[in-house]
Amino acid sequence: MITEVPGVLVGHSHRLTEGWATGTTVVLVPGGAVGAVDSRGGAPGTRETDLLEPSNLVSSVHAVCLSGGSAYGLAAADGVMRWLSERNIGFPVGPQPHQVVPIVPAAVLFDLDMSSWGNWPDASFGYSACASAAASFELGTVGAGTGARTGSLKGGVGSASVRVGQHVVGALAAVNAVGEAVDRATGLPWLPSLGTSPVELPPFVGSRLNTTIGVVATNAALSKAECRRLAMAAHDGLARAVRPAHSMFDGDTVFALATGEVPVSSPFELDALCTAAAEVFAESIVSGISEASTVADVKAFRDL
Amino acid sequence: MITEVPGVLVGHSHRLTEGWATGTTVVLVPGGAVGAVDSRGGAPGTRETDLLEPSNLVSSVHAVCLSGGSAYGLAAADGVMRWLSERNIGFPVGPQPHQVVPIVPAAVLFDLDMSSWGNWPDASFGYSACASAAASFELGTVGAGTGARTGSLKGGVGSASVRVGQHVVGALAAVNAVGEAVDRATGLPWLPSLGTSPVELPPFVGSRLNTTIGVVATNAALSKAECRRLAMAAHDGLARAVRPAHSMFDGDTVFALATGEVPVSSPFELDALCTAAAEVFAESIVSGISEASTVADVKAFRDL
Repeated sequence: MITEVPGVLVGHSHRLTEGWATGTTVVLVPGGAVGAVDSRGGAPGTRETDLLEPSNLVSSVHAVCLSGGSAYGLAAADGVMRWLSERNIGFPVGPQPHQVVPIVPAAVLFDLDMSSWGNWPDASFGYSACASAAASFELGTVGAGTGARTGSLKGGVGSASVRVGQHVVGALAAVNAVGEAVDRATGLPWLPSLGTSPVELPPFVGSRLNTTIGVVATNAALSKAECRRLAMAAHDGLARAVRPAHSMFDGDTVFALATGEVPVSSPFELDALCTAAAEVFAESIVSGISEASTVADVKAFRDL
Repeated sequence: MITEVPGVLVGHSHRLTEGWATGTTVVLVPGGAVGAVDSRGGAPGTRETDLLEPSNLVSSVHAVCLSGGSAYGLAAADGVMRWLSERNIGFPVGPQPHQVVPIVPAAVLFDLDMSSWGNWPDASFGYSACASAAASFELGTVGAGTGARTGSLKGGVGSASVRVGQHVVGALAAVNAVGEAVDRATGLPWLPSLGTSPVELPPFVGSRLNTTIGVVATNAALSKAECRRLAMAAHDGLARAVRPAHSMFDGDTVFALATGEVPVSSPFELDALCTAAAEVFAESIVSGISEASTVADVKAFRDL
């Protein structure tokens, strides 16, 4: 899980009741982490991504907010900011400890067709997700993955991590891709870790806005520019696990967080972290699909 | 004024009372406009800028939200989205007319030290600014310029426009720069249109987060990539009117909107619009400073 990286917590808030199937997931780093982003989908919905450009001032991020609700769901980040500011966590802008502006980049996915119109995450979802943040958290049809779909399957929140020497690289993905995680021709998953027996997929849903969003995190000490390489690498994992990936109707966006505990001594070491980031992001996508549960007529992989 | 471009409306909402000096300005294009952005300050606070990348799907923007309140003020865009969606204005995402997601890029400026802590624009500011939007609007200490400062002077909202053949190019700026609009050595404004007699500036305020944000608009028919050239050109106007410009503590961000009424027949014609964009953005900055009125101990240019 991404929380194998010390200092990283995850919280969900969602509503899965009559007329509701949406939610918000927050990756919280109360101690701050160097942050970066790479947005490669054709239809992103984002907030506070420009400050992550390596040449810019702010280098420490306090949370990443991932939410359903399409652009309406960007409001969830307002609640994350409030929760952090109540705890004096943020970029200092005045002499008093409470005078902080929390840095909360955010991205949203399209799940509006899974709820009645108008039922989307607001600031209270972000606030509740922070309040529930912990090292232990649920996967599947939870948080930002509650209304998620992937091709013809139910999508969800997945997570994975790996050790690379003294370093840990973890990832979390809210998987809602246009593309399929399973080859429709053979019935076999693109990544064997999702299963080795062919499945029969439900009919393809057709035109729909989608989006996979997520976070890769590491305990490595990285600059903003180095951190951006991790976010870029994670998109390779997305390309491997879902086809097509990065469509015009996906807002695929990955954030990277580096908590700075363990130095990186060479570009080769950084490169090994990038290779790992691609792998754990692909594994996160697999776990998001395999942990998801069926919602209404959107079948989960494990129910096929 | 920017509203010389047909189809462009401007509305303000602000609070200038005990403990409050902040607000929101909305540039509304209910009919939609091709949109672009160029963010060149070192400390931007933004929302929905990634979708403006020319290779991405969405090409029509329905409003640009400019707000005080630093990153907290990004919440104002939630209210702009609500106002637009109540009127069925947005990117269609379902079969019903009300199933729309309004496209509302936003940028914020830092004015937190002009209000009591916690007094910043929320969604209601964005909603009210839309409700008041019209072709005729106020300049100076209004909307997003209410708590703005520029170097040692009061900043504010300014606007200007110019005709270039059949085309109109207009701009609106909320001027809150780290730099000075007046040369401290000579007391003369960098741009003569601000005045030709030397003034004595108040002491420089020193370290503070700032930001100039704004919009250039045209009736030209531009692609997203061409539109981006207008936003880029506007930053040259900023560089001429304020020194230093684009500091690490400015989040300088300019949006461009093209309503598509009048075709552009050659790159030379586009280039003339870019030259005009730089000029009207510089003039908007001048008008923001010259129209501003003194708030507390932050002196306006016209009171010197």
